[in-house]
Amino acid sequence: MSATQHQIEGVITQGVTLARGFRAAGVSAGISALEGKKDVALVVNDGPLKNAAAVFTTNRFAAAPVLWSQQVVGDGRVDAVLLNSGGANACTGAPGFQDTHTSAEHVADLLNISAGDVLVCSTGLIGQRLPLDNLLAGSEQAARALGVSPSDSLAAAEAIMTTDTVPKQAAICVEVEQGGDYLIGGMAKGAGMLAPGLATMLVVLTTDAVLSPEDLDTALRQAVRLSFNRADADGCMSTNDTVVLMGSGASGLVPDLVGFTEALTKVCQDLALQLIGDAEGASHDIHVRTFNAATEEEAEEVSRAVSRSNLFKTAIFGNDPNWGRILSEVGTTSADFDPENVNVLINGVQVCTGGGIGQDRKLVDLAADRKVTVEIDLAAGEHEATIWTNDLTHDYVHENSAYSS
Amino acid sequence: MSATQHQIEGVITQGVTLARGFRAAGVSAGISALEGKKDVALVVNDGPLKNAAAVFTTNRFAAAPVLWSQQVVGDGRVDAVLLNSGGANACTGAPGFQDTHTSAEHVADLLNISAGDVLVCSTGLIGQRLPLDNLLAGSEQAARALGVSPSDSLAAAEAIMTTDTVPKQAAICVEVEQGGDYLIGGMAKGAGMLAPGLATMLVVLTTDAVLSPEDLDTALRQAVRLSFNRADADGCMSTNDTVVLMGSGASGLVPDLVGFTEALTKVCQDLALQLIGDAEGASHDIHVRTFNAATEEEAEEVSRAVSRSNLFKTAIFGNDPNWGRILSEVGTTSADFDPENVNVLINGVQVCTGGGIGQDRKLVDLAADRKVTVEIDLAAGEHEATIWTNDLTHDYVHENSAYSS
Repeated sequence: MSATQHQIEGVITQGVTLARGFRAAGVSAGISALEGKKDVALVVNDGPLKNAAAVFTTNRFAAAPVLWSQQVVGDGRVDAVLLNSGGANACTGAPGFQDTHTSAEHVADLLNISAGDVLVCSTGLIGQRLPLDNLLAGSEQAARALGVSPSDSLAAAEAIMTTDTVPKQAAICVEVEQGGDYLIGGMAKGAGMLAPGLATMLVVLTTDAVLSPEDLDTALRQAVRLSFNRADADGCMSTNDTVVLMGSGASGLVPDLVGFTEALTKVCQDLALQLIGDAEGASHDIHVRTFNAATEEEAEEVSRAVSRSNLFKTAIFGNDPNWGRILSEVGTTSADFDPENVNVLINGVQVCTGGGIGQDRKLVDLAADRKVTVEIDLAAGEHEATIWTNDLTHDYVHENSAYSS
Repeated sequence: MSATQHQIEGVITQGVTLARGFRAAGVSAGISALEGKKDVALVVNDGPLKNAAAVFTTNRFAAAPVLWSQQVVGDGRVDAVLLNSGGANACTGAPGFQDTHTSAEHVADLLNISAGDVLVCSTGLIGQRLPLDNLLAGSEQAARALGVSPSDSLAAAEAIMTTDTVPKQAAICVEVEQGGDYLIGGMAKGAGMLAPGLATMLVVLTTDAVLSPEDLDTALRQAVRLSFNRADADGCMSTNDTVVLMGSGASGLVPDLVGFTEALTKVCQDLALQLIGDAEGASHDIHVRTFNAATEEEAEEVSRAVSRSNLFKTAIFGNDPNWGRILSEVGTTSADFDPENVNVLINGVQVCTGGGIGQDRKLVDLAADRKVTVEIDLAAGEHEATIWTNDLTHDYVHENSAYSS
């Protein structure tokens, strides 16, 4: 999937500099093992507001930059985000935390801001110190290169790629009734799963809408719940996952919070689908939708159980509409349903009816399209949830085993 | 691994007919797609006691034979077990249940016993009716072939194989202080995971010790908890899993229940290790031991989280001692530990010390041996638990995707 194929209506291929008040850069600092690859990014909020919110991994081995950034965003203010690929700075103890602190201090000096307002994100191999000199030199380079054009945001998106095959950007323009518009832009890195020893999802979102840190936080948590938390490639949770949203207020427009949250959710969903679409070695994007559930939580539980099954995921790779493997997973959940009333559809064909044999599975064509839709009817209520995942392929095993640490 | 390489002390390669009072047979009835493969087995308890206990899958889409057998064992009496490969008879509704009932009635007529004392186990593709005529003809053949020799128990073990590459048997002889001995024998089928659309683990255990149904049940649940429930190949739970233990009392010896449970656990652990050793496409057997945990449950939770990580399992396939992927999984659990005190050893090399970088990972040689030991020191208590799993390989993906249903 190319980064320009958007699955969510109204979303365009622009990144973090689309919204007014933001500059970005991406440069090569020799941190990545790949000669010449961009590996340091900087995103700066020039205001007038410096409001921000962020969500982080709940992994108890949170990386040094996560521990640092949790403190930074605590007061609802972020002036700049420094990001690097080529090393996660996770499980590196006190020296690793000092490295993060030093790099934030350095960016603060360069931009004449406070180190306590510099968020830091790292991605790469766990259990290895960063080459600090390269990171400091890279942040100097990046500070000099900051710009507002699409190529600047693209360079930043490229600099955070690890096993990603394409940079990932998404943006939206919201016109408001009283006239004028506000903008939301974002970039993401992640190849649908915690890559070969490399930490996974980083996301930077920017908006020029006028919103308090509290409103940014409310909108971000809702958007993440319905996007990144619904993308479940292999159930693995990284030490470095970070999603940050900064608001410059430069549009001068105070948006309706519901409308803003909806637009932000679209951007996040598009980025999440780009992550799944670029999943390491995957050959199918799978939408597992559970409907007629008693609660949304139960619908999510069922979809997640199916999406984590290696047997289901290998069957889809083999273009085999093996609904027995789907029912087996549904049967392990505590969701409310009567086994004799459960139906399963694969690409619209009802292969399982009432917990038993339905339409001929030969009617299902899985080879025709990368996208696969699995629908599970629990016949127990009115709620639904969809989890996005992908298939388990030879290339997944290859990419995740061939890497030499 | 050949079926004769036992990892548990005192265990020998004998099966269900070693214990006095049991006859068995395995025959070819044309149910399996593989020409001439044995696919129907019968194990008969000739008494004098007909006591029994069983544990079944907790999957809510339990197969017809499971629903039937749960009723059979309810009164603590089982006279015979009919087993087939080549079809799971799962998700087949009322007609499937009728097929199971009919086959039990047929075996009862042949052996002049009650159908309500005939346990039934099936394994194979989910969502497909069994060829009932073949199963009935096969049970007649098996009834005629019943015998007490090692070749009879081996034939039964062969008849329940699906993607298994070797038959699996284990037995133990326990000499008692007052003189004499009692015997425990068993057979298992399962290739370490729910096979290509095929239902998974079936186990039949026999003993000639004198034990009540209640004592058999107590011993069986304890043994299963410490054996089959500690083998976690891909976290998938089948619709057909059944473990049944029958006691003939033919030794005349009333064993100490603790000693009996210990011996039964050894037989079950050996069979569980044979399942892991024969796991589809695996190239490493992995023992994930968590120690110094606050409780046994927390130790088990941590070991299970690691053993279910595709990233960890692909790293081991690649002979990569990637401890970051282990810590990442430990960090997702709710077990009691301080991240800064956690140590990780791979094949005895302490690659992670105090949640950070430990000994050089190059000291770990994963290519030398099929067996890999991962040890996680939580420094939070005195309890431990080990989960057995295997690596995720190209062959796993191939076997589980190439199958055409």
